[in-house]
Amino acid sequence: MSLKVALAQINFVVGNIAANVDAIVTAAVYARDQLQAELVVFPELTITGYPAEDLLLRSDFIAAANNAIYELADRVTDIAIVVGYPELKGQQLYNSAVVLYQGVIVANYRKQFLPNYGVFDEQRYFVAGNEPSVFEFNGVFIGLSICEDVWTDGFINTYKEAGAELMLTLNASPFNAGKVHQREAVVCQQVKEAGLPLVYVNQVGGQDELIFDGASFVVDANGQIVFRAEEFKEQISVVDFDGVNPLKTHCAPLYNYISSEYQALVLGIKDYVRKNGFKGALLGLSGGIDSALVLALAVDALGAERVEVVLMPSAYTQDMSNEDAVLEAEALRVKYHIIPIAPAVEAFTGMLAGVFEGTAKDTTEENIQARCRGVILMALSNKKGKLLLTTGNKSEMSVGYATLYGDMAGGFAPIKDVPKLLVYQLANYRNSLSAVIPERVITRPPSAELAPDQVDADSLPPYDVLDPILERYVELDQSADEIVAAGYKQADVARAISLVDRNEYKRRQSPPGIKITSRSFGRDRRYPITSGYRGV
Amino acid sequence: MSLKVALAQINFVVGNIAANVDAIVTAAVYARDQLQAELVVFPELTITGYPAEDLLLRSDFIAAANNAIYELADRVTDIAIVVGYPELKGQQLYNSAVVLYQGVIVANYRKQFLPNYGVFDEQRYFVAGNEPSVFEFNGVFIGLSICEDVWTDGFINTYKEAGAELMLTLNASPFNAGKVHQREAVVCQQVKEAGLPLVYVNQVGGQDELIFDGASFVVDANGQIVFRAEEFKEQISVVDFDGVNPLKTHCAPLYNYISSEYQALVLGIKDYVRKNGFKGALLGLSGGIDSALVLALAVDALGAERVEVVLMPSAYTQDMSNEDAVLEAEALRVKYHIIPIAPAVEAFTGMLAGVFEGTAKDTTEENIQARCRGVILMALSNKKGKLLLTTGNKSEMSVGYATLYGDMAGGFAPIKDVPKLLVYQLANYRNSLSAVIPERVITRPPSAELAPDQVDADSLPPYDVLDPILERYVELDQSADEIVAAGYKQADVARAISLVDRNEYKRRQSPPGIKITSRSFGRDRRYPITSGYRGV
Repeated sequence: MSLKVALAQINFVVGNIAANVDAIVTAAVYARDQLQAELVVFPELTITGYPAEDLLLRSDFIAAANNAIYELADRVTDIAIVVGYPELKGQQLYNSAVVLYQGVIVANYRKQFLPNYGVFDEQRYFVAGNEPSVFEFNGVFIGLSICEDVWTDGFINTYKEAGAELMLTLNASPFNAGKVHQREAVVCQQVKEAGLPLVYVNQVGGQDELIFDGASFVVDANGQIVFRAEEFKEQISVVDFDGVNPLKTHCAPLYNYISSEYQALVLGIKDYVRKNGFKGALLGLSGGIDSALVLALAVDALGAERVEVVLMPSAYTQDMSNEDAVLEAEALRVKYHIIPIAPAVEAFTGMLAGVFEGTAKDTTEENIQARCRGVILMALSNKKGKLLLTTGNKSEMSVGYATLYGDMAGGFAPIKDVPKLLVYQLANYRNSLSAVIPERVITRPPSAELAPDQVDADSLPPYDVLDPILERYVELDQSADEIVAAGYKQADVARAISLVDRNEYKRRQSPPGIKITSRSFGRDRRYPITSGYRGV
Repeated sequence: MSLKVALAQINFVVGNIAANVDAIVTAAVYARDQLQAELVVFPELTITGYPAEDLLLRSDFIAAANNAIYELADRVTDIAIVVGYPELKGQQLYNSAVVLYQGVIVANYRKQFLPNYGVFDEQRYFVAGNEPSVFEFNGVFIGLSICEDVWTDGFINTYKEAGAELMLTLNASPFNAGKVHQREAVVCQQVKEAGLPLVYVNQVGGQDELIFDGASFVVDANGQIVFRAEEFKEQISVVDFDGVNPLKTHCAPLYNYISSEYQALVLGIKDYVRKNGFKGALLGLSGGIDSALVLALAVDALGAERVEVVLMPSAYTQDMSNEDAVLEAEALRVKYHIIPIAPAVEAFTGMLAGVFEGTAKDTTEENIQARCRGVILMALSNKKGKLLLTTGNKSEMSVGYATLYGDMAGGFAPIKDVPKLLVYQLANYRNSLSAVIPERVITRPPSAELAPDQVDADSLPPYDVLDPILERYVELDQSADEIVAAGYKQADVARAISLVDRNEYKRRQSPPGIKITSRSFGRDRRYPITSGYRGV
């Protein structure tokens, strides 16, 4: 007795049911005809893409998704297809997996553990199922499960008791740095305890703030990984089973933390531009490290010909900033424009002279400069149909060291979840592949260049102090006391935390960006703007 | 046997535990000493305010909230206090109500039905309780419940079976137009079926996008309302019970739809400004109906001396717009500035001439005008510490008829959830109190005035067609086919829906605004930006 199981790690588009059905058919036919697979497994909620969010509340959308299952059953025969869909049964919606074979539904399973934390809102949409689903195929008893299920202690054991010999798991498990290791460790441990081999298929691709990293895998009954698909790429693969024992085949190597983060960012930009139909991307290039990194990411994602940049110097822009920005553009062979902002800044200064009479200069004047740049960049974005990438990093987003409608203007914020220290690491990593960012950009002190001789360290603790404090406060929910006890100065902790607390209003209006840490800003961290909570 | 129960309808600040505890003590002492109440009931999650969102994931915050219960028990004696708090028990968090009397905890109840739809995310934070809690006080057996519980069929009956003679309900039930009628109808029906009298205490106040409208009430065992507190105001009241029978007392009259919406908007502005510590508010006044209404709301919320406006005419601004804007400012006695935008627009036009050479004029040039206004308004907001109110309405937010970082710039968007037709109704309502908006502003065709002789009707269906289509699509989740079947033209439906579908990216970056309809944009409607779903 043998079985050939295909893993279809596909990049679906949320909401486009017709296109997703076509992609499923194409993949299933390929698995059947090219890989001789007898059964093909797709990711969680294949039909709708994941997460479809409040589209799942629309009855027209749900009807279309349920009808698509019957269409799919008719369109492909001679291979068993396992797909996920939002199953409507009476008035209740389930996150389900269905097995289609020779035009009929062979089995149906309703997800039992619905995550409702972090970026997940599944209890907003779905009712939990309450029983396992085991079906016989080619003489093998196969159990169905979905994502969170197999992270749950004892879950796979319930399938052993129900008679399953092999588990299939449909997943939409989003990326953060190191997640692939955690995922494999948890699932392999559950598999080992139950002694049932498991086929794990994950979605791949970018969807707004989330990256699905693929890295689908097969584990044998001992908890050993015998196959792994590549990270961050579509891939349809097949694994041979001798009875219920999966035979060892190719395990794609895993990226390390830094390179996986870089790949995630590239995929995030690529898919946001492609899936939203932009002609390309543009950004403001300051000569600083953040925009240098975003430019490299954009070129790696889209190709140099689809990216262009604008240098917008002011009186406070140092010569080396302009020189380095030009070097970056030339190294990556992207088109660049130089538009000094003085005429607009002077116009606003004149227009506001009356109402500002008698007031002292403050951040208002700095913000005007940043907002003049925002107007120019948005004008280019509007005129050219290119996505404006904003270049702020997570450290800045945390403490509000950015101007709303100024440097925060843009449709997508690729490094919004990348702390400043990691920005440097990613820049060095990219330079290790080929030198595209001048060394001076990496070594000089960071500056917003909105006032004479300004550097970030004037108003913020140094990043090697700030970043770990922010990680503890924002990602780990530590209190000020805990952070001080960990060895940070009271004054630095107080400064960082109070800035985080009072800048929620800026973050609420920031563009979406790519989640790469354990907790990003956005759906992952939902704080009130109006709040009397003070972390210090 | 008699009982005097106080209803403490208080405006709490989310996150400020110390201030909330002080407010509870003050109210309890007032209820005891001035109203001779023996028991006082507060709203849901009194200690933290509602909704505290992800603050509830912080262990320092939860510890402080739990400690506050013991502090409260010590600080007030000789009156039973019923307050809500996030109860930590082992590793699990409950949405609980506790009864404190003479320094000890007399009873504790864990909410059994946790809403996780619309604006609610309670399953993100809380585990559901699974049993009723009845305590004896002054010889009466009293049952505890929290908000969603009493909307649930059969819930109150379980308390009857558990021996309760009187129900207390702690609530944080947010406003939308007509909600007060729905709330009273549902609760009275449940009360009537079970035959248990009920004391319903609701939170009051604005919290980011939500308004809690108060209107706390007492229902007798027949389902008749015998007391109602005012809407939109803090109020501590007392109701006498003869045994378990509440005696009829004052029932505050309810506002009608229009006046309740107006009150909600005023309270929303007032609380956002106050709770976030702004010195006042400012806005751009165009001579159009939207900014006229927002100005009237702001003045009614904050007083004329805390509001200022800016007129920013361009070449496309008609004389009557400037005239009417001045009339509005003068009618409401607010300070106004006039800053023509031509110098900045000309500066940008010159700066972009090179890169735009050979391109045709399009919305880019219109957006530049709107963004120059955004820069001026933000500069004034920054310099003066006043909140910038943006003036876009729900119809515009739905179809994206607004400029990101232009007229969408601002910290708060009071009429973001007010459809255009309702803007007119609210303007007429305000004028019926005293004439502050010139009649011409109400009767002239709406225009963005970003191009010669432009009117909204050039690019949008008329609002009496557009608004009902939007309500059906956005609030009721109807499909295009259903809307056409209801009598709307295919072309209008298609135009409206496709604009809604493709403008999610703008809405994601808009400031928060006040929810007044059954579904607002924001936490209430969570759509993906990247989406292949097409409603048409």
